[in-house]
Amino acid sequence: MDSIERLTKKIVKFRNDRDWKQFHNPKDLALSLVLESIEVLEHFQWKNGIDLENYVNKNKDSISEELADVLYWVLLMSHDLDINIDKALENKLKLNNKKYPVEKSKGSAKKYNEL
Amino acid sequence: MDSIERLTKKIVKFRNDRDWKQFHNPKDLALSLVLESIEVLEHFQWKNGIDLENYVNKNKDSISEELADVLYWVLLMSHDLDINIDKALENKLKLNNKKYPVEKSKGSAKKYNEL
Amino acid sequence: MDSIERLTKKIVKFRNDRDWKQFHNPKDLALSLVLESIEVLEHFQWKNGIDLENYVNKNKDSISEELADVLYWVLLMSHDLDINIDKALENKLKLNNKKYPVEKSKGSAKKYNEL
Amino acid sequence: MDSIERLTKKIVKFRNDRDWKQFHNPKDLALSLVLESIEVLEHFQWKNGIDLENYVNKNKDSISEELADVLYWVLLMSHDLDINIDKALENKLKLNNKKYPVEKSKGSAKKYNEL
Repeated sequence: MDSIERLTKKIVKFRNDRDWKQFHNPKDLALSLVLESIEVLEHFQWKNGIDLENYVNKNKDSISEELADVLYWVLLMSHDLDINIDKALENKLKLNNKKYPVEKSKGSAKKYNEL
Repeated sequence: MDSIERLTKKIVKFRNDRDWKQFHNPKDLALSLVLESIEVLEHFQWKNGIDLENYVNKNKDSISEELADVLYWVLLMSHDLDINIDKALENKLKLNNKKYPVEKSKGSAKKYNEL
Repeated sequence: MDSIERLTKKIVKFRNDRDWKQFHNPKDLALSLVLESIEVLEHFQWKNGIDLENYVNKNKDSISEELADVLYWVLLMSHDLDINIDKALENKLKLNNKKYPVEKSKGSAKKYNEL
Repeated sequence: MDSIERLTKKIVKFRNDRDWKQFHNPKDLALSLVLESIEVLEHFQWKNGIDLENYVNKNKDSISEELADVLYWVLLMSHDLDINIDKALENKLKLNNKKYPVEKSKGSAKKYNEL
């Protein structure tokens, strides 16, 4: 089975086993997504340059855990809203391909509306 | 090929084609992850109850796009930090299984440290 | 002395006493501002309707603390960037007054570009 | 009149003139606070070192506007929850003074629980 499908099944089972669906509405799911993303970013607060690199190397396990939490909510929210997230990302890449054509955006950090 | 592996390859190719790796450090990747998560949440601002439900039904495509952006950064960041995000999520589910045993957490919205 | 001026002086003194200016750059100050704002919002996760109201009434002290943390970073960042935040807010209110004229926006939750 | 008191009065009047109180609950106010804080941080995305400094110097007006928006929500939320934010910040500084005694925290970026 496909990884996204397989992980989604495990996550939904985890929730169903605990009867937590009753607490889950899109707004609070999205808030959970934000809170877990912030925990990824929080790792890097007050760290820059070489300190940042060293920190990342030493704390990869802990950063992995936070990233996994973000993926957890992406997959659960996609499931609940009946979104095919695999296809949604494929579509987004096609859109970004048009917004950022290679010849215009190569090596440039500009936003698409500044290109 | 597995969906996570396949999507990651496409994302990395998208970046390499544009020579954008030079701008990508973990701190700014994590910030991108936060910004895109916030865009998911922003959809639901000032909306509650039945208004929220109606909004979600009418705006699924747009919400899908934002969720896809979040997944984009989860996969790119995992790639850059050499994290196996599939396995990281499996591990996280095992940890959560211990933190939230079914018999204690079933039907309860309490945090693990309040169970 | 004016409250914003007085609080700013206390905050800057608190930092100078600890010799923390060396760690403070605008990006990490802004990140602190985000993290503290998120802590305000985190209070309300999974709470809606009457539960939310009850929660707010019971946890006002704790919410006050998080809001004070947000104000701390607003004032410190304004100080470091040499921004007169009092005047900046007066100006913003004038701008918002034009973006949201009373006759058009009264009783409406629409964004200015939808009015 | 005191600056915080004066600004709060103007903000509340701005809202009352538009009859917007009906849309304001603590959860969505806190979300607004987060969204505006994020807009401050968004300025600094992909910018580091000397680029960051230059950017800040050139965009002070725009950053001021976002910081003013954050202050707007701090003051409005404090008003609605009947929080004396001036006193709350004074109290928080006293607490931080205990958590971070000068002799232990001087010149150190450590969190209070690591001191």
